[in-house]
Amino acid sequence: MQRGQIQDAIAALTQLHPADRADAFSDLDDQHQAAILPRLGISDTADLLEELEDEDAIVAARTMPTERLADVLDEMEPDEAADILGDLSPERAARTLAEMEDAEEVIPLLGHPDETAGGLMTTSYIALRRHTTAAQAIDFLRQVQADEETPYYLYVVDRNRKLLGVVGMRELVVAPPYTAAEDIIDRDVLYVTTGTDQEEVARLMARYNLSALPVVDEDGVMHGVITHDDVIDVIEEETTEDVFHLGGIEAGPLSEKPYWARRIPEIVRSRFFWLLGLFVAETLTGTVLRHFSRELEAVVSLAYFIPLIIGTGGNAGSQTVTSVIRALALDEVRRSDLLRILVREVYTSLLLGVLLGGVAFVRVELWGIGTPMALTVGLTIVTVVLWANVVGSLVPIIADAAGIDPTVMSAPLIATLVDATGLLIYLTVAAIVLREI
Amino acid sequence: MQRGQIQDAIAALTQLHPADRADAFSDLDDQHQAAILPRLGISDTADLLEELEDEDAIVAARTMPTERLADVLDEMEPDEAADILGDLSPERAARTLAEMEDAEEVIPLLGHPDETAGGLMTTSYIALRRHTTAAQAIDFLRQVQADEETPYYLYVVDRNRKLLGVVGMRELVVAPPYTAAEDIIDRDVLYVTTGTDQEEVARLMARYNLSALPVVDEDGVMHGVITHDDVIDVIEEETTEDVFHLGGIEAGPLSEKPYWARRIPEIVRSRFFWLLGLFVAETLTGTVLRHFSRELEAVVSLAYFIPLIIGTGGNAGSQTVTSVIRALALDEVRRSDLLRILVREVYTSLLLGVLLGGVAFVRVELWGIGTPMALTVGLTIVTVVLWANVVGSLVPIIADAAGIDPTVMSAPLIATLVDATGLLIYLTVAAIVLREI
Repeated sequence: MQRGQIQDAIAALTQLHPADRADAFSDLDDQHQAAILPRLGISDTADLLEELEDEDAIVAARTMPTERLADVLDEMEPDEAADILGDLSPERAARTLAEMEDAEEVIPLLGHPDETAGGLMTTSYIALRRHTTAAQAIDFLRQVQADEETPYYLYVVDRNRKLLGVVGMRELVVAPPYTAAEDIIDRDVLYVTTGTDQEEVARLMARYNLSALPVVDEDGVMHGVITHDDVIDVIEEETTEDVFHLGGIEAGPLSEKPYWARRIPEIVRSRFFWLLGLFVAETLTGTVLRHFSRELEAVVSLAYFIPLIIGTGGNAGSQTVTSVIRALALDEVRRSDLLRILVREVYTSLLLGVLLGGVAFVRVELWGIGTPMALTVGLTIVTVVLWANVVGSLVPIIADAAGIDPTVMSAPLIATLVDATGLLIYLTVAAIVLREI
Repeated sequence: MQRGQIQDAIAALTQLHPADRADAFSDLDDQHQAAILPRLGISDTADLLEELEDEDAIVAARTMPTERLADVLDEMEPDEAADILGDLSPERAARTLAEMEDAEEVIPLLGHPDETAGGLMTTSYIALRRHTTAAQAIDFLRQVQADEETPYYLYVVDRNRKLLGVVGMRELVVAPPYTAAEDIIDRDVLYVTTGTDQEEVARLMARYNLSALPVVDEDGVMHGVITHDDVIDVIEEETTEDVFHLGGIEAGPLSEKPYWARRIPEIVRSRFFWLLGLFVAETLTGTVLRHFSRELEAVVSLAYFIPLIIGTGGNAGSQTVTSVIRALALDEVRRSDLLRILVREVYTSLLLGVLLGGVAFVRVELWGIGTPMALTVGLTIVTVVLWANVVGSLVPIIADAAGIDPTVMSAPLIATLVDATGLLIYLTVAAIVLREI
């Protein structure tokens, strides 16, 4: 781009909503990003870094001179600034902090793991003392820099910053001017501690429809606030993790990165051990088949239906495991429901099995390999569908009870577990039916 | 329960947070629910109905006398009340509306499909005229009944209720008392129309971190507001739908119900047609195997590796399709990225295929069925993993481009598509390798 075009690009970018601007900026190549970045104002740069994906934000931050970066971080939300500082080298982070004016807002946020309440919270919230009047609080709001992200709740704390309660801005506004904060606060305020897992934070905020959730330490001292927009990010991150597990991918840090930020060696690593584990488990099927080599040699057409049978078992198991895992994720079922779930799934799978078994019987008859073969395949389908649903409903709940993330009990894993046993069922049924007739 | 116990149960229930109270109430059996419901106050009943799952709420509503139900609905959020009225029989709904005092808040919400912005919005928001002063607005807030759910934004409309802009409660509070609303509003307000799909609503609110989103009609006339707590419900509902599709379950209305509310005939229907379709597609594998019946009869040990090969292909395909579908759902990749995605996945799958093929070669060698067989299986694994990844990355993107929900291109479907072609690859490789040696 020529200089004039860069000016145009900057003008176009600054007219967009920060979220769209970040997208447009990410789509530029490195060279153009490097050309534009120094020409943006401090506040525009701060908006941009807040909206960029973490990986892109840190790349941009690394290219900036320390002094400029410090100015930009001062303009950013403290929690976003802390995320960037946490990704810089310790020396660079220390030098940047030394240059910052609002370092004291950011420092308390450093050192909390990303996936905890401490890692999600911001220090930009408004705390009142209990004797503050409504009029004083409103005066205070006038003085502090207006900031869209400040939650619409004010927190009342004691002299040691212990959380006493919360007051909504609306209650504050409609209260008589000389009412003390302590007379209008809701003392029954929900809070979490800095170490609370982000999944629990999201669950609480979703369940109780909270738009802000205060974070305290073990002594009840207030450290920050988590706002509702962070919850959606957490839910998306946790969903990606669950979906990856269901698809047989090791989630870990990979699921936190957007698609294009994942490097191929990482992807290979995240998939290989799953594939290998499933491959090793799947070799059991070979053992089963070798055990029945005499039957297979005598009736080669038995082999024709192997993929059909293990495929159907895998599909039925995948349906059940998906339903049960999703219900566990949404807290709709509990471990103690094990028996009730089993009864439901057995009943469902008997109906499904009989329907599909009937279809299979007719289909094999139409192939003209004889009724005994059709009977064998039909009976096997009924049994395998039943068995797959039992495994698919028991395994995730037992995993959950054993403290293992049930989403790891993925559809591929269930399918693999069902494959070898499905073959055992098939060839046993075949041995009986074909010998009988 | 004796009368005394019912009193105790009611006392215990009313001490819980409404969300927890609804859970505790749902866990009671019908008889106890029926005993408790008439003894709760109007406002407690309203809280309870708001928090209950839709299915449980409508059951409870049906048991109430019309007059009482009308009083309860008057106390509820208009959008929640409209949901219940929409599920009653038309006659019962009309009689109940006739008894209600605040029917005019609820009537505009009836008739919007559940999954649109109109179905999500509430009419309980505060609209100001452009000349209203900050002081008048605050006076107005004092007069209207305090309501926790009223969003912390006020909307400025013209005489025809056309949306002009938004003002945050904070801006209102800190403005000089005689400032007119039109001087402090943000005119650059994001809005949706009543027919906007709920998925798009959730995407906008998540992307721009909105805590409230106004809903207008085609003429820009304001009809309601969607609040952030609705978004989480939508995201969870849409996620359940995606997860169900990935697991090979027809989602539809089933995914909107919690686990225990789904009836077994519904479950069977939602699963059967998928299983049947996949079963029919899977019969292709039988056709392939019959085509190679001569090879299978000559070398029965070929059959031993059928499940291993189609299983590995299915697992590899499932990993790729999961990654691509999740990236599409989060807008991380676009259709135009097709070639870039393909290059990435081909490269990844070559690495994975060579690694796994090597393992397979060694494993079959150890079984002592001879090097030609080991070579056949190893080479097949490399090819099948590559092929599965190509299918797994192309199919969802082509589906998306064709206007089909890509999540329907589930892991089971990809596995089934790969099964027959995987066998074709296997037996072709076998025919070549075993003849050569």
